[in-house]
Amino acid sequence: MTNLLPIREAQERILAVINARGSEPCKVELAIHRVLAEDIISPLALPPFNNSSMDGYAIRSDEVSNASPSTPVTLPVSLDIPAGFAQQGVLAKETAARILTGAPVPDGADAVIPIEATDQFKNPQTAPMQGSVGFFKPAKAGDNIRLAGEDVQLGQVVLEKGRHLLPQDIGLLISLGIREVQVTQKARVALFSSGDELLLPGQPMSPGMIYDANTYVLSGLLEDAGAEVIHLGIALDNPESVKNTLDQVLQNPPDLIVGSAGVSVGAFDYVREVIEANGSLSFWRVNMRPGKPVAFGNYKSIPFVGLPGNPVSAYIGARVFVLPIIRKLHGLPPFTQHVIQAVLDEPLHSPDGRESYFRGVIRKEEGVYHARLTGHQGSGNLFSLVQANALLIVPAGVNHVGAGETISAWSLDPELT
Amino acid sequence: MTNLLPIREAQERILAVINARGSEPCKVELAIHRVLAEDIISPLALPPFNNSSMDGYAIRSDEVSNASPSTPVTLPVSLDIPAGFAQQGVLAKETAARILTGAPVPDGADAVIPIEATDQFKNPQTAPMQGSVGFFKPAKAGDNIRLAGEDVQLGQVVLEKGRHLLPQDIGLLISLGIREVQVTQKARVALFSSGDELLLPGQPMSPGMIYDANTYVLSGLLEDAGAEVIHLGIALDNPESVKNTLDQVLQNPPDLIVGSAGVSVGAFDYVREVIEANGSLSFWRVNMRPGKPVAFGNYKSIPFVGLPGNPVSAYIGARVFVLPIIRKLHGLPPFTQHVIQAVLDEPLHSPDGRESYFRGVIRKEEGVYHARLTGHQGSGNLFSLVQANALLIVPAGVNHVGAGETISAWSLDPELT
Repeated sequence: MTNLLPIREAQERILAVINARGSEPCKVELAIHRVLAEDIISPLALPPFNNSSMDGYAIRSDEVSNASPSTPVTLPVSLDIPAGFAQQGVLAKETAARILTGAPVPDGADAVIPIEATDQFKNPQTAPMQGSVGFFKPAKAGDNIRLAGEDVQLGQVVLEKGRHLLPQDIGLLISLGIREVQVTQKARVALFSSGDELLLPGQPMSPGMIYDANTYVLSGLLEDAGAEVIHLGIALDNPESVKNTLDQVLQNPPDLIVGSAGVSVGAFDYVREVIEANGSLSFWRVNMRPGKPVAFGNYKSIPFVGLPGNPVSAYIGARVFVLPIIRKLHGLPPFTQHVIQAVLDEPLHSPDGRESYFRGVIRKEEGVYHARLTGHQGSGNLFSLVQANALLIVPAGVNHVGAGETISAWSLDPELT
Repeated sequence: MTNLLPIREAQERILAVINARGSEPCKVELAIHRVLAEDIISPLALPPFNNSSMDGYAIRSDEVSNASPSTPVTLPVSLDIPAGFAQQGVLAKETAARILTGAPVPDGADAVIPIEATDQFKNPQTAPMQGSVGFFKPAKAGDNIRLAGEDVQLGQVVLEKGRHLLPQDIGLLISLGIREVQVTQKARVALFSSGDELLLPGQPMSPGMIYDANTYVLSGLLEDAGAEVIHLGIALDNPESVKNTLDQVLQNPPDLIVGSAGVSVGAFDYVREVIEANGSLSFWRVNMRPGKPVAFGNYKSIPFVGLPGNPVSAYIGARVFVLPIIRKLHGLPPFTQHVIQAVLDEPLHSPDGRESYFRGVIRKEEGVYHARLTGHQGSGNLFSLVQANALLIVPAGVNHVGAGETISAWSLDPELT
């Protein structure tokens, strides 16, 4: 095979024409798994005020320095500070303030002694406050006090542009009183399949026809990556149908059009004809298996990726070429697959040295990953992809990897550990 | 510390009273990331018919056995079989059928010769069919034919009950013409926070108050696990408010109620009082850090988990105790976190030997994971969780793990590779 384009070069050529989307405001509660389009600077300190980390009594540490179980120090209780208490006040000298976890430490106090180290331990915090409290042990200045700003300081950058927001990030933003953040707009991807042999779900099966699986495999991958999918349906093997299918996007142009060619390379010629008449298209033969033929271009200035029609080739092509586009549209750094190193149970052969993605099953034994192939590796055989939990990768230029050798694998299973 | 319950025992006690939810029908297109509640038996063979894996010509292999570039075998073209062709017909002897990838192989033919190995290679498949074709090489019986049923056989179990459905599974179900599957109902979880000091997003900040982060941290974790979250809001530190908050669930009882205690253990007493009067509640001291105090019981027969109020404790408590409940409700097997083995940059100390979860950052260097701590490990400090990409785990009974030693870690970052 001559003139096969290396995968990395094909990826780079595609990404060279893709720009990150613009930003839009998003309510913080709805921003989970969105990508920040701004640095977040804290408008508050966290905690906002010195507060107690225990239920107990705020005191001046020098007033209880001699406390012990046999010689408790007893102080009158002059304040009761529940959580949410607004008026801090000053702790009168030689008194204690009953205080709950999270409540503001009064000025003057420099430590909190937990209720377990007092004679009030049996007295629930919700019971009426007693007139005095006996302390069984001393405290150092600062004990059981969380200082204002110890977690986050006013003006600090807490989350950076490009951050993929996780549940804990949403919690932090809420803690800071932030209501709305700028996030990258969701990538909008229009999907179609082409081929006279394709049936939509719900149409009756008939001889020579197959149900179109690619639309659903690809839309699942794209939606998992945070993209919004526009379904264009099935283009038949004639130029009018292809053009009508594609022209659905013109009302609200997406960031990307992704097609898969039914199962027919021949059918793809109609897509080529229509796209070349309305944009441009390059067919590449990429140095990979499966998924060698990849088309890239634009339709009326909208980027277009044409994937092979075989479902497994389309799936792998989408992982290799389309998901990196989604990341770039979302303003995320280049893709890192979850790569596992696994020891082969059986040899892998890649006779022509293309970078090859085999469907495999990985399992962990005594801390080491082992890999075997799933069944029939034909690229039309979706079931062997369903049975796989990983893609086993033979690098370009390698013809053979023996049993017992270690290879890299992409995990396909979010639960693979 | 005496009488600390081992984590595994607390988990087992909780899971002992949780049952998988019932099933419901779901359209296949909407079933992604749902859990199958039935075995799927294939109603079709895949491929449904013998078909060509190449664009080319279907022939009888014994009729072209002498073909070579210098002595091509020429046959008249008697059939043209595009994709989606319904009438297979029989290939007349000593003729060839033009055939596209995926199109049904006619009876009589036993191999397909790709167009590249014929004198029609320059002739696009979409051009008018020529009267005859010259073959430059022979074929073996079966070449370039995908046999009916080679991927999936009629009646075969293709997906098993308990399967978490991925994009490729949806594609397979669509391929099989299946329109609807039984899936486990989504877990319904009611969430509340408690504490007089808590503010809702949008309320003005005032002295002594903090915004309630836990609701959003927990709802993010739960929704990522596929649960439906019902927000009960904030219960104030009085029995009426707690009861009113909880009674919101009675119209449509959820599978689980999860509370977090504002930041006050004292405040929790009101929750205890209300739940004990309307169900039962056990307080456990679990052998873990952070998150030692965990409450478990039921409110009017609905299972209840009470998490600590500190956001980091609540987060870790939810991962350890609540997410396994969601998995069981969904009919999934016990939880496996994504565990990474990492070499410590710095020592970890767990003076009282509790199973400890430290917030850390993991990085890969030359194929080996290394771990360091994020900043301040106080359990109120959400920012150090935000900065972490992993929880570094010191097992129960271990007081010290030295720099250079290997520990287990849970990945918190879906992109950690």
